Amino acid sequence: MHAEVIAVGTEMLLGEITDTNSQVISEGLADLGINVYYHSLVGDNEARMTEVVKLAASRSDLVVISGGLGPTADDLTKQVVARYLKRDLVVDKAAMQKITAFFKKRKREMTPNNKIQAMYVQGALSLPNEVGLAVGNYYQDPNGADFLLLPGPPHEMQSMFEKTAKPLLAKQYQGQQVLNSRLLRFFGIGESNLVTKLADLIDEQANPTIAPYAKENEVTLRLTAAGHSDAEDARLLDELEEKITDRVGEYLYGYGENNSLPAVVVNKLRQRKLTLSASESLTGGSFQAAVTAIPGASEIFPGGFVTYAAEQKEKLLGIPADLIEKNGVVSRKTAIAMAENTRNLLQTDFTVSFTGAAGPDPLEGKPAGTVWIGLAGKNMVTQAKLYHFQYDRQRVRNSAVMTGFGMLNKALDK
Amino acid sequence: MHAEVIAVGTEMLLGEITDTNSQVISEGLADLGINVYYHSLVGDNEARMTEVVKLAASRSDLVVISGGLGPTADDLTKQVVARYLKRDLVVDKAAMQKITAFFKKRKREMTPNNKIQAMYVQGALSLPNEVGLAVGNYYQDPNGADFLLLPGPPHEMQSMFEKTAKPLLAKQYQGQQVLNSRLLRFFGIGESNLVTKLADLIDEQANPTIAPYAKENEVTLRLTAAGHSDAEDARLLDELEEKITDRVGEYLYGYGENNSLPAVVVNKLRQRKLTLSASESLTGGSFQAAVTAIPGASEIFPGGFVTYAAEQKEKLLGIPADLIEKNGVVSRKTAIAMAENTRNLLQTDFTVSFTGAAGPDPLEGKPAGTVWIGLAGKNMVTQAKLYHFQYDRQRVRNSAVMTGFGMLNKALDK
Repeated sequence: MHAEVIAVGTEMLLGEITDTNSQVISEGLADLGINVYYHSLVGDNEARMTEVVKLAASRSDLVVISGGLGPTADDLTKQVVARYLKRDLVVDKAAMQKITAFFKKRKREMTPNNKIQAMYVQGALSLPNEVGLAVGNYYQDPNGADFLLLPGPPHEMQSMFEKTAKPLLAKQYQGQQVLNSRLLRFFGIGESNLVTKLADLIDEQANPTIAPYAKENEVTLRLTAAGHSDAEDARLLDELEEKITDRVGEYLYGYGENNSLPAVVVNKLRQRKLTLSASESLTGGSFQAAVTAIPGASEIFPGGFVTYAAEQKEKLLGIPADLIEKNGVVSRKTAIAMAENTRNLLQTDFTVSFTGAAGPDPLEGKPAGTVWIGLAGKNMVTQAKLYHFQYDRQRVRNSAVMTGFGMLNKALDK
Repeated sequence: MHAEVIAVGTEMLLGEITDTNSQVISEGLADLGINVYYHSLVGDNEARMTEVVKLAASRSDLVVISGGLGPTADDLTKQVVARYLKRDLVVDKAAMQKITAFFKKRKREMTPNNKIQAMYVQGALSLPNEVGLAVGNYYQDPNGADFLLLPGPPHEMQSMFEKTAKPLLAKQYQGQQVLNSRLLRFFGIGESNLVTKLADLIDEQANPTIAPYAKENEVTLRLTAAGHSDAEDARLLDELEEKITDRVGEYLYGYGENNSLPAVVVNKLRQRKLTLSASESLTGGSFQAAVTAIPGASEIFPGGFVTYAAEQKEKLLGIPADLIEKNGVVSRKTAIAMAENTRNLLQTDFTVSFTGAAGPDPLEGKPAGTVWIGLAGKNMVTQAKLYHFQYDRQRVRNSAVMTGFGMLNKALDK
């Protein structure tokens, strides 16, 4: 059983908008254990749409199409699919009444085209549209691929897909298998290194499957188990996760789709009733912006400094001018003084400090990407570490910010 | 001449992420006057990738593929295309040196897989990757479709596409018509409002064309002229721009793809040798992070404060406790005191201050989204304005930051 997802709309081929429907549909199908092998996108062109529909029906068991159900002349999806299936289009009377009432209420003239929105392929189920006018279609073909036609506007598509289509598909295609996923998040290790360390596990993966994915400054692994029950899945996922953490557990910082290293760190601080402040030079406020992006940050973060100019490191933080003169702005001593002085001023449990060359130009002869990160805390010796980050100014700053969270996370785990 | 865009990556078929590359590529091809007839998306599966590549090459003149150039075992794009073209993969020595140096510098182990990132299809042009390791490929086939292979990570793809690939394609495929685009950027007006004000111009567009596009906190208009020379295009664009600015010129803040309101403001300050500081509460450092994201910000920005807790507004900025008690943290008086006191402490020409409720919870009974923004400057009366921003915490903070830049930009234009 595998499916194919088609989006219809010339505006997407022109790059005016991104097709987000195919992602939402694929995610929903994955939830149901239905494999998606292809996405296609085609414009509002009858010949090319017909070609894409034919190809999809020839190679897939289920074809899900979004878009092209509207009232304008270039909305052709139902017509193309009906012709391919050699079926007529018939009117859904309830939907037609809704359309008529819609135009009456707004005192707008109904065009003949609007009637198309209430039509469906003969033999298909007409799927109601709770937030728009065009009905969807679900056609089961005993001799070929099944078709699910959904509206193009994302909110209409999502509403119909979640409320009507997914339950229909679940009933129709879901077998005995129960699917469960677990997302593991890693910081401080690159994708290729992680994958190399887990090479045998990845090579022999079957159930659960392992899918690595690299984002900026982190790597995730999605483990997906297909067992006969949630309990069996949980056991399979636990076993595999243990094998993984035996090798790379030191880099695992958290779980789940809606998570991040800043969120994990802020929430650890909240749970332990610890506070944090910061003083930033090259990162210019980005670390503090990331801290305060997490709801509830006010419980742990009273504030901090952006000391971009050397003079302000002296004036606002009270760092002696000769310390900076002797060691340079980009130095261990400056990073340590920034962290300690800020911690004293704000009386927090921890302080992270950043000083370095964001680029594009070098600073004090140090190449762009050279960054010292300081960490002061109670019951610990203040530390400062030197990093060489790469690529452009924005990447250097982002890497510095995330590495600051990484240092603090390690200190909290000790 | 028509093209086809393919994205490669199982994670997109699973619905874990949205393919945004195909949209960006299509937009760029549209700029060059190249029609895109199909998008396809296929997983990291050799057989299905081969099938999709074959089909694309059979029906299109140019096949652009993003993704699958990385170092892991499931990155197969170059291998599949090379096999289809019956060509070997060869090593780009400069790229290989870069990869070796990258691993050496980080003291990380290089895996054999990483070598693949430096390889290209024999006979193709190897396209340098300025922000990553995997090279791109541009292969011109005299007997069939041309291939352009780009990396999957969006920032790598965009960098390579803009800097290297688009100029190559322009040279190769652009005919007698000379295309020139101009991007106009607007702040402070919504898309529907802008489009309504320009409705007749948009309806009658032919040459130049007008493409509006709404982003978070700004709207852009892309004007594209197709004349017989750059000079003719410039004249056509000038004429249309004048008609547009007659109506909505007050919202136009700048031009060009790689531009932003923060960049415009920072560069105006630099040109006039004026300085800026900030004190931020709900925005938590985001405004200062946006200032310092612009190269050269150190000329105009010495530093500032993140005074997240009320106590720090008193302690760091010297705002009297009873002012905050009487007026509340989210108040005109607090915003004004934050701006003025910060300006006095840092001796800058301008200071912007932010205080408000980012959400999700209300603050002092004021609903999430309530924000006061203050602006102090020499030769002007300190102002503070009240805004009600919408949606989630992140949107509220972003809108506040951009509105701060908007207020400063207006003051600079006076």
